[in-house]
Parts: sequence; C-alpha cells; structure tokens
Amino acid sequence: MKINLDTEVLTDNNAAAKFNRDLFTKHKTLVVNLMSSPGAGKTTLLEKTIAALGKEYSIGVIEGDLATEKDADRIRALGAKAVQINTNGGCHLDARMIAKVIDEFDLEKTDILFIENVGNLVCPSGYDLGQNHKVAILSVPEGNDKIPKYPVMFRRTELVVLNKIDLLPYLDFDVDMAIEDLKGINPESKLIRLSSKTEEGLDEWLTWIKEAYRNLQEQ
Amino acid sequence: MKINLDTEVLTDNNAAAKFNRDLFTKHKTLVVNLMSSPGAGKTTLLEKTIAALGKEYSIGVIEGDLATEKDADRIRALGAKAVQINTNGGCHLDARMIAKVIDEFDLEKTDILFIENVGNLVCPSGYDLGQNHKVAILSVPEGNDKIPKYPVMFRRTELVVLNKIDLLPYLDFDVDMAIEDLKGINPESKLIRLSSKTEEGLDEWLTWIKEAYRNLQEQ
Repeated sequence: MKINLDTEVLTDNNAAAKFNRDLFTKHKTLVVNLMSSPGAGKTTLLEKTIAALGKEYSIGVIEGDLATEKDADRIRALGAKAVQINTNGGCHLDARMIAKVIDEFDLEKTDILFIENVGNLVCPSGYDLGQNHKVAILSVPEGNDKIPKYPVMFRRTELVVLNKIDLLPYLDFDVDMAIEDLKGINPESKLIRLSSKTEEGLDEWLTWIKEAYRNLQEQ
Repeated sequence: MKINLDTEVLTDNNAAAKFNRDLFTKHKTLVVNLMSSPGAGKTTLLEKTIAALGKEYSIGVIEGDLATEKDADRIRALGAKAVQINTNGGCHLDARMIAKVIDEFDLEKTDILFIENVGNLVCPSGYDLGQNHKVAILSVPEGNDKIPKYPVMFRRTELVVLNKIDLLPYLDFDVDMAIEDLKGINPESKLIRLSSKTEEGLDEWLTWIKEAYRNLQEQ
C-alpha cells in the first residue's frame, strides 16, 4: 500500500487523524491507542495479548519511543508486524507520525493495530491519532494519587487497565479508591484489574478487545 | 521579599533560569531539581528527607503538578514550607514559573530548596530552572529498559536514585545492568540504591545532600 500524503495531513494533527481514521474505517481495522507512564507495562501487556490472540487475529503494532527499537524487537520476537517510531526526544506520538508509517502495514489484512504511545502520562492524551479507542494503563506501584493528579489523561480514556496487581500485597494501593476517583473524573470509564505477570485479569482484557473488534465489524 | 520580574525573565527560559540562579547563589540556597516518572516516589523521598534533615536545615519545596495540591499538602504536614505550582496540563516546570513564586520563600533563611518537577521522564529534562543539581529518580517497577529508552533525561542528571529496591525480590530488575547502562549514557553520573519505605540507602542520599550543601557554602 503506497499512500500519498497531502500537505494538510502533514501539517495539521486533526487532518492527519481524520486521514488515519478514514483508512482504518475503510479496512475495518480496530485501532487501540495505549498510553501510560514509563514502565507501567504497555509492552508486556501487548506481548501477552499477541500470544493469546495472534492466531485468531492478524495484529500489528506501532511502537512510539524517544529512542531505541527495544519495544518493536520484543513484539517482532512474537511474530507480529511492528513498526518503531522514534520521536527523537518528543514526548508523544501525533497523527502525522502515524500517517507516515501507515503504508508499512497491509491494513486489509490487519485486524487489530495497537499503537503503543511514548511512556508519558501527560502529553499523549492531547493528540488524536485516529484510533477507535484510547486505553490508559496505570500500574499499582505508581500509587493511588495518579488519577486525580493526571486528570487530563484519565478524562479522555474509556478503559483503564490497572496493571501489576500481583504487587498489591507489598504496596499501599486502594483499588476501590482508584475506581471511585476514576468515576469522579470520567463516569463512563471502565477499569480492569490485571497482572501481566500472573495473567490474572488477562481474560477480561482479551474479551474487551474481542468485543471491540466484533462491534467494529458489525458497524 | 518582593521581586520585580522584567519582561525578558517572563518570556525567555534561559533568562529566567539565570535570574533564579543569581538569587539562589546570592543566598547560598542549595536547589535540587527532582525529576521522574509519575509514581517513582519523589514526594515520599522528600517526606523522608524533611523528616531526617528538617531540624538541621531550613527546607523549602516547590511542587509542580498538572492539578491538585496533594503533594504540597503532604510536605506542609511535615512543617516545611511548600508552594504548589499547577501547570494546568503542562508537562514540566519552567524557570519562569519558578521565578514567579520565588518571593514566597525567604531565601536568606532557606538552606535547601527542592523543586519536585511534574511526573514525566521526558519534558522536564530540557528546562534549566536555575538549580544547582538535577536528580532523577528511577523506580524498580519501571523496569530495566528505562535508562536507554529515555536517554535525554539520564544524560543530563548527575545523580540517579534507584528507588523502591524493597521490591527487587518480586521483580526482574538487574541493578548492575542499570548501572552499566547509566555509565554508557552518562559516565559522570552516580546511582544510589534506596527504598523510601524501608529507608535502606536513605543515609547515602542524605549524605549526598549534606555534602552538596557544604560544598555550596564553601564556594
């Protein structure tokens, strides 16, 4: 697939997001924009997701990082197509960066495309990439105060994966308080408790993905 | 202390950083700019530091957050002066924000001023605030790949506090690899292993602070 990007798409984020969304919609590719702090577990969750769903669905991943191909290499090791975007110090992906690499995927044959944003709980939340769903990962060691302290992120995500729940016995984290804080900021948002390490809660996440995919195909 | 800020200081970050630095130098106030991902433990480390050094030194704290006064309230509960800057969604503090609140502190009577930056491993690294020292906190649950993946931050900090080492038994984190990665990016940087929870390593951090203060007084 070779795409010609016009000037507007290359200069205006909203135009680029629309361009991306039109392409994704045309091919009925489910696109999930994954955002979190550094080290909350985005790549590990993707590894588990690809291992579980990779036979049933054709999965692609766009990896956003300041530097290195480390995350893309981890995804490729599982046999999935991964394209790395290095932002050279930039704190988020934008829709123009996505538009520029989109033709590296055969969208007609891609069921699900995950976009792993730069590890950052602030900047990525403001940029529409053309995705169907925005998902935030919050990890237990980050602490209970992150939802009220980073409201811009949690106000704009429809699903929060509370990751690393295997560490709950060793940390003071009140899950009920997190759910209450989330409801206060974003009543429509859902929270899934999960440990990528023990795979507790993984089924609920996989079900969410599968339902999102099914809903998209039925539109 | 009432300070008149000229236009240049309010529009140019480097001018504001110089303005701040001149003031700090004049009063021999040690200023430490603390940076990390969300939830790496900046505020808890400050709480422990104030509890340990608060009788010997007069300590002030500037708290940078997107929203809420939560962190400043935690510092005030220990009897230290704390000023909260809310960035309204901005992903870092800049020197102009610091310049605007500086006169809330009596610098002549402030030995050490900690600036707790917004939780973000990307944006804060690019902004000189006029501090004496830049310190990054990396927490064990964030994982081993963060130093190479966020080189801009770790290249510019002279000390890395590796926090939450009490969680090492439950996580795959290779401290020697972190030290090696850090040396590769920033040979001058030092790493202190610490747990704010168990206070292991806290003495080494306190010694570092006291030495930095002593060196400043002798200049």
